Amino acid sequence: MLEPSADELRDWGNSVTQFMIDYLGGLRDRPAYRHTSSREIRGRLDSTLPIRGTDFNSLLKVLRETIVPFSRQNAHPRMFGYVQSPGTPIGAFADLLASTLNANLTIWRSAPAPVELERLTIDWIRQILGFPAEADGLFVSGGSMANLAALGAARHARDDSLGRLRMYASNATHFSIAKAAALLGIGRENIRHVAVDESFRMQVDDLVAKINADLASDYIPFCVVANAGTVDTGAVDSLREIREIADRFQLWMHVDGSYGAFAILAESARRLFAGVEQADSIALDPHKWLYLPVDVGCVIYRDPEAARAAFAHEAEYTRMFGEEADEAFV
Amino acid sequence: MLEPSADELRDWGNSVTQFMIDYLGGLRDRPAYRHTSSREIRGRLDSTLPIRGTDFNSLLKVLRETIVPFSRQNAHPRMFGYVQSPGTPIGAFADLLASTLNANLTIWRSAPAPVELERLTIDWIRQILGFPAEADGLFVSGGSMANLAALGAARHARDDSLGRLRMYASNATHFSIAKAAALLGIGRENIRHVAVDESFRMQVDDLVAKINADLASDYIPFCVVANAGTVDTGAVDSLREIREIADRFQLWMHVDGSYGAFAILAESARRLFAGVEQADSIALDPHKWLYLPVDVGCVIYRDPEAARAAFAHEAEYTRMFGEEADEAFV
Repeated sequence: MLEPSADELRDWGNSVTQFMIDYLGGLRDRPAYRHTSSREIRGRLDSTLPIRGTDFNSLLKVLRETIVPFSRQNAHPRMFGYVQSPGTPIGAFADLLASTLNANLTIWRSAPAPVELERLTIDWIRQILGFPAEADGLFVSGGSMANLAALGAARHARDDSLGRLRMYASNATHFSIAKAAALLGIGRENIRHVAVDESFRMQVDDLVAKINADLASDYIPFCVVANAGTVDTGAVDSLREIREIADRFQLWMHVDGSYGAFAILAESARRLFAGVEQADSIALDPHKWLYLPVDVGCVIYRDPEAARAAFAHEAEYTRMFGEEADEAFV
Repeated sequence: MLEPSADELRDWGNSVTQFMIDYLGGLRDRPAYRHTSSREIRGRLDSTLPIRGTDFNSLLKVLRETIVPFSRQNAHPRMFGYVQSPGTPIGAFADLLASTLNANLTIWRSAPAPVELERLTIDWIRQILGFPAEADGLFVSGGSMANLAALGAARHARDDSLGRLRMYASNATHFSIAKAAALLGIGRENIRHVAVDESFRMQVDDLVAKINADLASDYIPFCVVANAGTVDTGAVDSLREIREIADRFQLWMHVDGSYGAFAILAESARRLFAGVEQADSIALDPHKWLYLPVDVGCVIYRDPEAARAAFAHEAEYTRMFGEEADEAFV
């Protein structure tokens, strides 16, 4: 099964394609969600640690009879749950191709062309958002990781280990920001929750008041998180105003655009995002409104050197000699 | 292209299957690695931000003519680079199926059967390693994330924000441990590098000496990282001895098994891992010796409550009522 023949591959390819055709074609006739329990599903799966392999068709049977019926059908026209893009055939085939190559993109020399593809597509996202040409970024596993990575760079830029760093985000901010603050050792207690107005946008006068109060108490304000589409209501904070305040107090400005920032592609919504290109970092989730397979998040840094300073590390086996900067381990 | 017909899907399925057959069949005739430059590859890619879609066959042509030739062929019989498992057809087809469903496994109710599959396979890994039935874990994006998650839980268990926490790892430890310490706010300077013996295994007397010296200087020793297969030489530390020392000084014992721990499946190597099931956490990379597609890492916690305490968060839209513990948001 590890080295199938061409004929076997053809059979498998036909089987998965037929599965996809049947699944997508029959989606409207399924319930979008089926009430079930953990116990019911476990009872249908063979839970024994397998010692031998299983043939391809038996695996597909488990998928067809147990996994699919007991999944939420994200592509169903009556799937009214929170944001979750359906899988698309083009994305699924792309995943098959990517896993056939199984490239390791952690270093240019491991996968030259796949790394260039990542750089190219990151640059497209940079252009969509209007960031300057020097901005750069990378793909991560999701919006939470993108927020963590950006806040990690922000914290590194204002290194202080005495629990005096303070960051600011509105009440409507996604919980991954608080989790990132906890994980990074900033501490949940050092997030100041700024009040929102009737449209659930950050009240900038409350932001300024909180920063001034912290300065007066010997804290170190270092970062403000603006929302470009909150998860609860889609509110977009006043990015230009927040940038001005960030400049005034020398704060890192991070934008959490995981839920909504790709709405900038719509002419009608574009004005909401004015100033986004002035952020120091932004988190995005291409697996939401770009309909890519989970899990692909993205972080863009206006000054990629700030991220490099936070994350670079040199190990014996990652060292390269005589290479161009473009081909370095980053 | 977002809603292809059954005939289009059949065409695409045939094309990608044929691609896979050609690629795997012709692998021995390709160079494992081709000297190239960033500039050369970029010159071959259309770098314009695309406004319209591209047809499927044109995308496959780019893959065939530019991406594949300028990739490292990890499955090539003469690929002598560092650990990187080749893609397997079975894994590639599984990726296609997973992306067709595009399940979101962050919460049980988003994807009941896929979450149960994750739990089942995590439990298989638990059994392979010999951890007690109460142990639990999850899949993450790779070994570095698994190390970060485990050390995050360890740090949370001994919360101190004054820069006094100290952790211990041998000189031969992977750099992701130092990066995790930096990211978590523990500080790179608070990793104590324990000397190794002639087999590159941690010298436990040096470990004890360093812990005692730190205690004498008012630091708080909280964690020791043992290696179950170092990246440079595959050395496995004396896990039982390290467990004893961890118990004596009340340290969290984390094992980095990302590179080598699945060697426990080989009867001949099994004895090297004696005591691994006593660790508080272990990081693994199923995408290495289990030949799964990148990127799948795994972290197992002996006491999953410790991880829950570090990572749980309740948000309005994640709250559930009247559900069984097995079906909760975790």
